[in-house]
Amino acid sequence: METPLKVYKGLEGIYVLDSSLSFIDTENGKLYYVGYDVEELVARSNYEEVAYLLLNHKLPTMSEFSAFLGKLRDEMRLGEEELEVVRFVSKRSGGMDALAAYFIMTQKDAVGEVSPMDSAVRAVGKAGSVLGNVIRVQRGDDTLNPDPSLGIAGNLVYLITSEKPQPYQVEFLDDILILHAEHGVPASTFGSVVTASTLSNVYSSIVTGIMTLKGPLHGGAAEAAYQQFLEIGDPDRVESWLERALSERRRIMGFGHRVYKIYDPRAKVVKAMAAKASEIAGGHVKNLYEIALRLEEAALAKLAPKGLFPNLDFWTPMVYTAVGIPPNYFTAVFAVSRIVGWVAHLLEYWKDNRLIRPLHNYVGPPVGQKYVPIEARH
Amino acid sequence: METPLKVYKGLEGIYVLDSSLSFIDTENGKLYYVGYDVEELVARSNYEEVAYLLLNHKLPTMSEFSAFLGKLRDEMRLGEEELEVVRFVSKRSGGMDALAAYFIMTQKDAVGEVSPMDSAVRAVGKAGSVLGNVIRVQRGDDTLNPDPSLGIAGNLVYLITSEKPQPYQVEFLDDILILHAEHGVPASTFGSVVTASTLSNVYSSIVTGIMTLKGPLHGGAAEAAYQQFLEIGDPDRVESWLERALSERRRIMGFGHRVYKIYDPRAKVVKAMAAKASEIAGGHVKNLYEIALRLEEAALAKLAPKGLFPNLDFWTPMVYTAVGIPPNYFTAVFAVSRIVGWVAHLLEYWKDNRLIRPLHNYVGPPVGQKYVPIEARH
Repeated sequence: METPLKVYKGLEGIYVLDSSLSFIDTENGKLYYVGYDVEELVARSNYEEVAYLLLNHKLPTMSEFSAFLGKLRDEMRLGEEELEVVRFVSKRSGGMDALAAYFIMTQKDAVGEVSPMDSAVRAVGKAGSVLGNVIRVQRGDDTLNPDPSLGIAGNLVYLITSEKPQPYQVEFLDDILILHAEHGVPASTFGSVVTASTLSNVYSSIVTGIMTLKGPLHGGAAEAAYQQFLEIGDPDRVESWLERALSERRRIMGFGHRVYKIYDPRAKVVKAMAAKASEIAGGHVKNLYEIALRLEEAALAKLAPKGLFPNLDFWTPMVYTAVGIPPNYFTAVFAVSRIVGWVAHLLEYWKDNRLIRPLHNYVGPPVGQKYVPIEARH
Repeated sequence: METPLKVYKGLEGIYVLDSSLSFIDTENGKLYYVGYDVEELVARSNYEEVAYLLLNHKLPTMSEFSAFLGKLRDEMRLGEEELEVVRFVSKRSGGMDALAAYFIMTQKDAVGEVSPMDSAVRAVGKAGSVLGNVIRVQRGDDTLNPDPSLGIAGNLVYLITSEKPQPYQVEFLDDILILHAEHGVPASTFGSVVTASTLSNVYSSIVTGIMTLKGPLHGGAAEAAYQQFLEIGDPDRVESWLERALSERRRIMGFGHRVYKIYDPRAKVVKAMAAKASEIAGGHVKNLYEIALRLEEAALAKLAPKGLFPNLDFWTPMVYTAVGIPPNYFTAVFAVSRIVGWVAHLLEYWKDNRLIRPLHNYVGPPVGQKYVPIEARH
């Protein structure tokens, strides 16, 4: 009799790599990028500087940052050929798919003479300009030339709204981008690293990240939380809705996280942003926020004892909405931000690459089955 | 002092899932699909039947097979809209990227009312028709309507050559497709499952598979072996080339495999096919074969003691070339075949889905770094 094999399904609790990029302090509910508290980065830094930090494992000096920003701004521009790709893919695919299709069809930008770091910076620069134009084309507008001087967050707001962005929009989106930039090895990042481990290129690994982040158990959660708030519709209906949802054993979207068994530190920050967004934007955003607030209170009473707390995705819908991002693009904005996490991980992994090649436990019929010709099968 | 964490880099030796699809008998050098010896399937079955076996975990009866073939043939057709996508992506991407871009831009075929099994069968049917047309467009020819009556292998040869395929071409390609259909959880299949574990869809998971298979440490090996044979150029130069290559510590392409430490059972089958291909096609194929044969002998003497033996990719270049497939599309033909393995795995995984979410070991600077304003950094 053979010892049964241990199968690590879901890879829960399995450490797959060393990384300097983030530390998730699940005991104290803290998240650090390269040693810096993310709450402090949100308060004092900006997405571009955080991108530098993740790609270079240190904060830049003035001259380093200015050189980095110069490169990034060059990459934020889109040429006519790139816009043609954007127009074609936008007609056929949702936001996430269009973004992925863009990276597949511009693969020449990631191979040959281009260093992995250069194509990483290129991807970080292009992503927002591509997504902004995808959103434009899909709602029937013409493409618009990016304005790199606005920075990554400001440019994305500009492309979506066709107007010079309000400072609060830029600040909200910039903070959202910082908070989504990196989080260890969730499925999308780990998938990117699996792709990278075959020495496939930076863009291919990003495509894997996007295909994986798309899933409703992963990046799709913020949009699902938004739809849930819409379904509830009114703060006064929260309690009855929750009672029914729990009795039907439905998942409360935006609650629970594989890693955090306490309050997600990012959610704490975004909750405060959502409160501010509700005040500034009022109306629909305020209504969503009030629903969320009341749902949090009611749900916590039932779910906190099970270790389920609101995560990042519970609070972002209000902020995205205040910024002007339609719900079907929430996940794509997440992708625009997380690209830097994906590429930072693969640059790090390649320093000591090891092909990822696990094993499976065979549970099928005994081997040596007799092949019976089809005429004789029944 | 803390105990150092165990990091399973490369996931070597880690079992990540249960599967009924294949058993790799590394001791006896045998490979089984759902209990059937692959050598027997190559000798007696065909790719379509093997696809049915992997998707349904049993061989079909006559009526089951005829229904399956009907569906598959419907899916092999490409409409004008699909051909337009093929033409657009072919101008911008290599074979693998074009195939992936096709699956991204036709995602509507994999969502909504479409069952996962139906979109799996659709993908298996479309892949060869898409690749054949990508090859046509990229060499400057018009697209051509697939001929589903020729079967998947025959239709691909037809699209590539524009002629009714020779029986030996169909047989070779069909055998190649069977041999590449499934092989447990290499990086591409595992990557597909990582994507699928977020409940992303069948097509998205295929895209991840393609992005991952592309890597030179994975599906790219057959083309690299071909280039290596070209570089050697003449059987008489094998020994001097090998001596230099080994002294420069270069990797011998097509030698060694993470799983097999003895002769790859698939390589054994393809070696015999390569001998036959060399006889039938003569000329260039014969020269490649003679180089490969002599390189195998010389390299085995040095590498067998290290557990390095020729793998599948060492012998396929001669067979692909005899069939008429240009070397820059070898990996894409591998993908066309392996799609059924990817989708079979994810259909199986979804029966008891578990989000894949491993952990990383933080090795960065101590957390709580002080954020110094950029003006004060040096």
